Amino acid sequence: MINNKIKGFLYGADYNPDQWSEEIWMEDIRLMKIHRVNVVTLPVFSWAKLQPSENEFDFSWLDKIINLLYENGIYVNMATPTAAQPAWMSKKYPDITRTDIYGRKHKHGGRTNFCPNSPEYRRFSKTIAGKMAEHYKDNPAIVLWHVNNEYGAYCYCENCRQAFIKWLKNKYVTLENLNRCWYTSFWDHTIYDWDEIEVPSALTEILPGASGERDRTYFQSIAIDYRRFMSNSLLECFKGEAEEIRKYHKETPITTNIWSISPELDLFRWGEQCDIASWDSYPSIKDNPSIIAFRHDVVRGLKKGEPFLLMEQTPSQQNWQAYNAQKRPGVMRLLSYQCIAHGADGIMFFQWRQSLGACEKYHAAMVPHVGHENTRIGKELTQLGSELKSLQDKIIYSKIESKVAIIMDWPNWWGVEYSSGPSVDLTYIDRIMKYYRALYDLHISVDIVEPTADLSKYKIVIAPLLYMVSDDSIANIEKFVGHGGTLITTFFSGIVDENDIVRAGGYPGAFRELLGIWVEEVDALYPDMKNGIKVEKQLDENQKSYECKLICEVVHSENAVVLGTFTEDYYQGFPAITENVYGNGKAIYVATEPEDNLIKVLVEKYCAEKNIEPIIKTNADVEITRRVKDSNKYIFILNHSSSLQKILLGEKTYTDLLKGDILKNEVEIEPKGVLILMG
Amino acid sequence: MINNKIKGFLYGADYNPDQWSEEIWMEDIRLMKIHRVNVVTLPVFSWAKLQPSENEFDFSWLDKIINLLYENGIYVNMATPTAAQPAWMSKKYPDITRTDIYGRKHKHGGRTNFCPNSPEYRRFSKTIAGKMAEHYKDNPAIVLWHVNNEYGAYCYCENCRQAFIKWLKNKYVTLENLNRCWYTSFWDHTIYDWDEIEVPSALTEILPGASGERDRTYFQSIAIDYRRFMSNSLLECFKGEAEEIRKYHKETPITTNIWSISPELDLFRWGEQCDIASWDSYPSIKDNPSIIAFRHDVVRGLKKGEPFLLMEQTPSQQNWQAYNAQKRPGVMRLLSYQCIAHGADGIMFFQWRQSLGACEKYHAAMVPHVGHENTRIGKELTQLGSELKSLQDKIIYSKIESKVAIIMDWPNWWGVEYSSGPSVDLTYIDRIMKYYRALYDLHISVDIVEPTADLSKYKIVIAPLLYMVSDDSIANIEKFVGHGGTLITTFFSGIVDENDIVRAGGYPGAFRELLGIWVEEVDALYPDMKNGIKVEKQLDENQKSYECKLICEVVHSENAVVLGTFTEDYYQGFPAITENVYGNGKAIYVATEPEDNLIKVLVEKYCAEKNIEPIIKTNADVEITRRVKDSNKYIFILNHSSSLQKILLGEKTYTDLLKGDILKNEVEIEPKGVLILMG
Amino acid sequence: MINNKIKGFLYGADYNPDQWSEEIWMEDIRLMKIHRVNVVTLPVFSWAKLQPSENEFDFSWLDKIINLLYENGIYVNMATPTAAQPAWMSKKYPDITRTDIYGRKHKHGGRTNFCPNSPEYRRFSKTIAGKMAEHYKDNPAIVLWHVNNEYGAYCYCENCRQAFIKWLKNKYVTLENLNRCWYTSFWDHTIYDWDEIEVPSALTEILPGASGERDRTYFQSIAIDYRRFMSNSLLECFKGEAEEIRKYHKETPITTNIWSISPELDLFRWGEQCDIASWDSYPSIKDNPSIIAFRHDVVRGLKKGEPFLLMEQTPSQQNWQAYNAQKRPGVMRLLSYQCIAHGADGIMFFQWRQSLGACEKYHAAMVPHVGHENTRIGKELTQLGSELKSLQDKIIYSKIESKVAIIMDWPNWWGVEYSSGPSVDLTYIDRIMKYYRALYDLHISVDIVEPTADLSKYKIVIAPLLYMVSDDSIANIEKFVGHGGTLITTFFSGIVDENDIVRAGGYPGAFRELLGIWVEEVDALYPDMKNGIKVEKQLDENQKSYECKLICEVVHSENAVVLGTFTEDYYQGFPAITENVYGNGKAIYVATEPEDNLIKVLVEKYCAEKNIEPIIKTNADVEITRRVKDSNKYIFILNHSSSLQKILLGEKTYTDLLKGDILKNEVEIEPKGVLILMG
Repeated sequence: MINNKIKGFLYGADYNPDQWSEEIWMEDIRLMKIHRVNVVTLPVFSWAKLQPSENEFDFSWLDKIINLLYENGIYVNMATPTAAQPAWMSKKYPDITRTDIYGRKHKHGGRTNFCPNSPEYRRFSKTIAGKMAEHYKDNPAIVLWHVNNEYGAYCYCENCRQAFIKWLKNKYVTLENLNRCWYTSFWDHTIYDWDEIEVPSALTEILPGASGERDRTYFQSIAIDYRRFMSNSLLECFKGEAEEIRKYHKETPITTNIWSISPELDLFRWGEQCDIASWDSYPSIKDNPSIIAFRHDVVRGLKKGEPFLLMEQTPSQQNWQAYNAQKRPGVMRLLSYQCIAHGADGIMFFQWRQSLGACEKYHAAMVPHVGHENTRIGKELTQLGSELKSLQDKIIYSKIESKVAIIMDWPNWWGVEYSSGPSVDLTYIDRIMKYYRALYDLHISVDIVEPTADLSKYKIVIAPLLYMVSDDSIANIEKFVGHGGTLITTFFSGIVDENDIVRAGGYPGAFRELLGIWVEEVDALYPDMKNGIKVEKQLDENQKSYECKLICEVVHSENAVVLGTFTEDYYQGFPAITENVYGNGKAIYVATEPEDNLIKVLVEKYCAEKNIEPIIKTNADVEITRRVKDSNKYIFILNHSSSLQKILLGEKTYTDLLKGDILKNEVEIEPKGVLILMG
Repeated sequence: MINNKIKGFLYGADYNPDQWSEEIWMEDIRLMKIHRVNVVTLPVFSWAKLQPSENEFDFSWLDKIINLLYENGIYVNMATPTAAQPAWMSKKYPDITRTDIYGRKHKHGGRTNFCPNSPEYRRFSKTIAGKMAEHYKDNPAIVLWHVNNEYGAYCYCENCRQAFIKWLKNKYVTLENLNRCWYTSFWDHTIYDWDEIEVPSALTEILPGASGERDRTYFQSIAIDYRRFMSNSLLECFKGEAEEIRKYHKETPITTNIWSISPELDLFRWGEQCDIASWDSYPSIKDNPSIIAFRHDVVRGLKKGEPFLLMEQTPSQQNWQAYNAQKRPGVMRLLSYQCIAHGADGIMFFQWRQSLGACEKYHAAMVPHVGHENTRIGKELTQLGSELKSLQDKIIYSKIESKVAIIMDWPNWWGVEYSSGPSVDLTYIDRIMKYYRALYDLHISVDIVEPTADLSKYKIVIAPLLYMVSDDSIANIEKFVGHGGTLITTFFSGIVDENDIVRAGGYPGAFRELLGIWVEEVDALYPDMKNGIKVEKQLDENQKSYECKLICEVVHSENAVVLGTFTEDYYQGFPAITENVYGNGKAIYVATEPEDNLIKVLVEKYCAEKNIEPIIKTNADVEITRRVKDSNKYIFILNHSSSLQKILLGEKTYTDLLKGDILKNEVEIEPKGVLILMG
Repeated sequence: MINNKIKGFLYGADYNPDQWSEEIWMEDIRLMKIHRVNVVTLPVFSWAKLQPSENEFDFSWLDKIINLLYENGIYVNMATPTAAQPAWMSKKYPDITRTDIYGRKHKHGGRTNFCPNSPEYRRFSKTIAGKMAEHYKDNPAIVLWHVNNEYGAYCYCENCRQAFIKWLKNKYVTLENLNRCWYTSFWDHTIYDWDEIEVPSALTEILPGASGERDRTYFQSIAIDYRRFMSNSLLECFKGEAEEIRKYHKETPITTNIWSISPELDLFRWGEQCDIASWDSYPSIKDNPSIIAFRHDVVRGLKKGEPFLLMEQTPSQQNWQAYNAQKRPGVMRLLSYQCIAHGADGIMFFQWRQSLGACEKYHAAMVPHVGHENTRIGKELTQLGSELKSLQDKIIYSKIESKVAIIMDWPNWWGVEYSSGPSVDLTYIDRIMKYYRALYDLHISVDIVEPTADLSKYKIVIAPLLYMVSDDSIANIEKFVGHGGTLITTFFSGIVDENDIVRAGGYPGAFRELLGIWVEEVDALYPDMKNGIKVEKQLDENQKSYECKLICEVVHSENAVVLGTFTEDYYQGFPAITENVYGNGKAIYVATEPEDNLIKVLVEKYCAEKNIEPIIKTNADVEITRRVKDSNKYIFILNHSSSLQKILLGEKTYTDLLKGDILKNEVEIEPKGVLILMG
């Protein structure tokens, strides 16, 4: 439970009362009650108002609105305003603003325009967090602390360079060690003095890609270390504020809202520091529901399966996409339940009342510009609020139990996408999604875990494109397979260590023995090229041929059984899919990217071997998940399609939690509809 | 009349005699006479020659060529050379060169590379203008003053920041007022001291778009104010020079050549300061003639319908486009007459003699590199010069009388295209062109006016995408409709005030009562999406269905009659086109972008209601306009097509002004041909 | 012969022993022997190791590996390490690092990150070259010196500005002269003091194009001079090092590896300074073999036909392309022989042993990550090494004898591609390739020469798009035709002098008399446009029509015979191809870009007139070249196709040099196969 004060789901929004008159505040209270809002986040961007000058603090207006909210039964998710420092601060302490990857020192403007290694920023952000924590130390309205907002902007200034050197000294201790791990014998890069180190930027080792393209770098090791360092620098900012808050708020959980599943931050490290995970979900209307599901599963994984909080979503329209379509009727509710279906205990929106000015004014809000509740979206929000309230604490703190895990790793992401060769299309998340989608379509739950996670509770672990692996990760994965687990991994895996140094002696390096193969060559296909895979009977009775693309490796089986072979080109007849017995388990290798159908066949086969069954076996075009608490099981059936779907439930009897009906045999679910079955 | 000295059309070119020997000057005179040139513009880029060092001025060479021209009956459009300062000046006063939006201080090079707020640039540009004015104060050759050249380059330097703050103090008086109008409660942007204000740039509030994409900004209000300020800063440069000239030249008109209908300058403000409007027309050969016509109409509108001057066009080829095709035979003449047909009293070229070096050397000129007149283009130039001369003062100072106006507004343009949401395809001019094109095809004249213009002489006013409107504009438009006018406006109109602050209380904000509707939602369609409109009998007897794209709004009629409804999606059956009676007039709303056919049906219907007839009713593929002076009417028929067109004139008798024939019944017009009918 | 010490082909690779333990060195020797490696290049990137601080030099490790190599019969191509200065050097002497075209001063990182005009860089690079030369002055292992690596990066710093001004003073002597040649009367650019001159950059006169687009400039003359100056500045760096080496190594040839046939360096100037030409060939797998052949011919032309050295190619995969496909079986060998077929006496690879870290680690090497020779590629390398060894000195120092030359000129390249107009598609190398390809398909050898080269040994000279020509070049070409040669040139040729100043008096300027034509207009076609050519009987008996694109000129024949006319548009019937008798020769003009078939017809006709026969007349899809030494002729037949090809040899008897067979009548050549016929 996020906080004992709220027994059921959190339901609310970011609230910016400082944009509105007190008259409007009263109307806000009225509308919050209509929508069943029980918590609001504030004051996310009010630093300048709370601290109008260096030694002046004014919480009076904030006291007033918090009291008003609390008197009306609405709790507060207390935000520190440190994502945007006041203009006076940037002016007086110019080292606070960011220097970008092109070496351009920014001036005041925008947001997240602070250097995480600026001593002044650190000092000011801790001070305001501490002042707020002290001021509100006994305030009963507070249920959660929300530090900063959507961390993620990197800086490349001299302060960062100094801090980077310090961080490197701590990590590598000696220059000899650093030179070896950075492979500086290449291109004369030997460092003889720590002070010779520059931050990797467009002025040194990085060629930033055009919009939508990946950055290139001369030294992956340096660039990856800078990502580690920057993720950590920002995390230090978070920790600095969290420590101040904790002095006065011993029990209240502290979080920060993650802006996306993106490469800037190593989120597993952030999960360790947050008391609960929370994030902001802004899918495009062109996103398949499975990618949204995946992102929720990642966030759930940050706290090892603990319920999380959806901190922001839009009631309907976004403003910053190229084409900002309205969410069609029912979709906001459907996506909200999808989030709960993947482990959330709260649904919140950005924002409460739609701004009248600046760049987010066309982002939908719970209260639109027209100012009243009698709109399509208003009615949907009221319905959802009422339903969540009616569920009471039923689903709260229930969890998802998965027998399958997919490995995801931020340093590997960085390693893969900084790689020069073999193919610019070798994007990491897309590769993961190929396997995630197969499980999603099979209605089998999956956890997203780090390569060093405890894998003992899983029967199958899938590690797509696990290019960069530490020795610890190798040992962990070998242990998992040795103890009877099934591992599925793919092309270009096991290649390098955590410094992006190739594990010599033949690909797939780390996994050569585990997989029982030697990969002689890694061939990259142009987007207009493809090959085929002829599969063996063990995999597909009909021995059909399937297409494959992207990468084809020239594989030699050393111990492994060949389950499929290439049908074209000079590696025709060479293995494309292999299976190797290792200890009590099996390690499967997929040396190319097969079409989705074949990945599904593959995943289904190994799940069947381990008796991993779908939650409900159905061909209907629905998403199905299950949360479990004590003996209660909550099955979520979500119809993202535009047509009615029918599902055979069989003999078992379920209660429809939302409508209260008793269900059995066949159940129908309307387009964009949601069913929560208890039973 | 631009100047009494020339009774007929101005005909000539930019002339750069300082690129040529005096021997060539004599040949130039010979050729000017052949082509019937009566005016040349000079010395546009000769500052370094006129002022070789800070305190040294040399007009002797200029005197010589001006005398030579005048002796040979050729007048002078006297240009100040201030669009490109001398290298010595940039070197000695480095604050003169521009700082770009990325914060990069430029060094000497290119042109329009001056900061409009540089005190040194202001001082030097006024000095040279004043010196020239004084030196030529009694010179009879001068018929026009041409200040600078193609103003439009913005600067972002510290001088500009200081000047911006001063401008803001004058506009907003108090910081409280500025904070409110800039909506700085968003993202902690409260300004406590004027000096905290930064110019909006890539280092602060702007994300410049890649080539062809729009810039994005966090604060539309600030970015729009900077455009107002920069347009005004450049206008102050113009005014500074004009004042110096006026000291010695009381009667000669002063202009500057506008480089394009582009967003940099609020041209209506420039029209107020110029004695006559003039511009440079450089269409691509892929431009439809209607967009060229539109641009001429904009320029004519800058001086409320007074005849304007085409200051530059190319005789044939341009040099700076990707593919610089030659103008096909007849096209140069046709486009020249099109310009006259839209209100010009002079046709001039860039340039007289083709340069031998630098980046414009492959831009065609009246005298090409071969150096003589016996070329295809030379002959076309001679023919045009002769024809214009033969027309004497017949068309001069005649005007276009329009009953229809289209509203165009620069701040609205800025507001629309800085908007974050709903769609990046929401470009302003393209939206205007949808309605302009319908009138163009119907052979109905149109004026382009500001929203605060006197609308009393129009029967129909069309305001496409009038997103941003001041209270004054609202009152003006309401008055127009109240007094019996017909207003047609579209989706996403009336939304914000002049600071880009939303007019709360329901879209279309400013126009909700006028239009009798409430717009609940604004949905953005991806380029591959479309909807349909089913129209009512009042609009189209056959009640056909039409396609629509781009934006579809969810509209509720409050008082309006519904003329068309959407055929698809969740707003199927909701109003797409409405008509509302207001006072003695009507206000029509089009909540999407219909296909061209439907816009034509709509425009035709409301024109018919107001008895606005085509100049000539014909299905022929021609452009038709009319200029009127006293009792004389001059009808221009322009055949932009590649086939012969036939037009029924009916019983009325006309004189063909160019050939002298008497025309009646049917007239034929050859491909690329021109007819000017008087009668 | 490159060096007497090696009688046959050089065969080896770049070797970076400092990336490896001495244990690995021993394994390297074993593998080198297997692959028949006889030379390695080192130490290309070891400056930091050789000179760990300003006054400290350490050659001990290098001595050790060189001795080891030499003891095992492997020679050394001794490289100076000056392409990447040590980090300590950049730190201590920050003026060494580059300033880019955007004015951004770089910090240490990457490679070729040095300013060629930095006095410190010049001093340090000469010192290390001198120290190495002295240290190894009697070392018998050295067969070649390799200065720096892939020169080509430009700098735009203040040191460069000062050096540029000095260079300009030397070139132009007076400012009057400079102003005239730069055409500074345009846009007020008159320079009154040398110090007013700025380097042409994005802050002054250049608009850098997006990736893949050309840069634009306001002043071509300045931008071209800066290219001349930069090419020369880098060449001065080369010469500085070469002088130091020459002090101790009187006989050993000195080279630098050219990175590509690219516009940065005027390679003919570099050819003058290098003792042998060498380059790095990195074709994409999508490149047609003819473009690779062309590049080899260019390199051979740099030393007027002397054998050259392929310094780098990849054994299979590259790393820096978007999609890095493996070279298919046989392709590495085929491309190696293609290089020899075009005049190379050595085949070397980048690199010997594949790096484990940094950005080139996925670039293939002779020893891959697996570390042994038992791979597909390993076997191909062994086969090639053995074959080359078996050829002994047979082909060494034989030459290609061409009767046809194609003119290529770097300043012209710069002039063409900086040109503003007529078409952005007017790329230089693509135009050359149209004619090169025709000769390639006809199996006729061609030399690539400068316009001022001795043309007397050629019967046909083709000068595609020779836009910019000096007076000397004109005289040289006129002399060639006057003495009986045949010249073929194309549209937009002869237009400007070496300063990009138009030769007034009618296009094609320099060549008007030679070609007997006047070009009145140059029309640019959009990519979706085309015209046609109807040819006369002299050119094609069937008088077929062919397509043409890109540029169509309006041509008037003054003395020339018309061989083809345009079929469309307003220049229908005007000449498209003309032939003019001049002295004892002929000058042919092609006023557009015809389809490949017509270019082949044209080239074939004029070759036939001059009795220039194919090496072997065959329709088979093969490449054929011939090298000649004394009375020996070596014919290379290369099958780049994927199918077996059959060639009729006729009665003549040949020896298959690789297999030793005697061949006559018909010979078969397998896909990717190579035949070397002696006879």
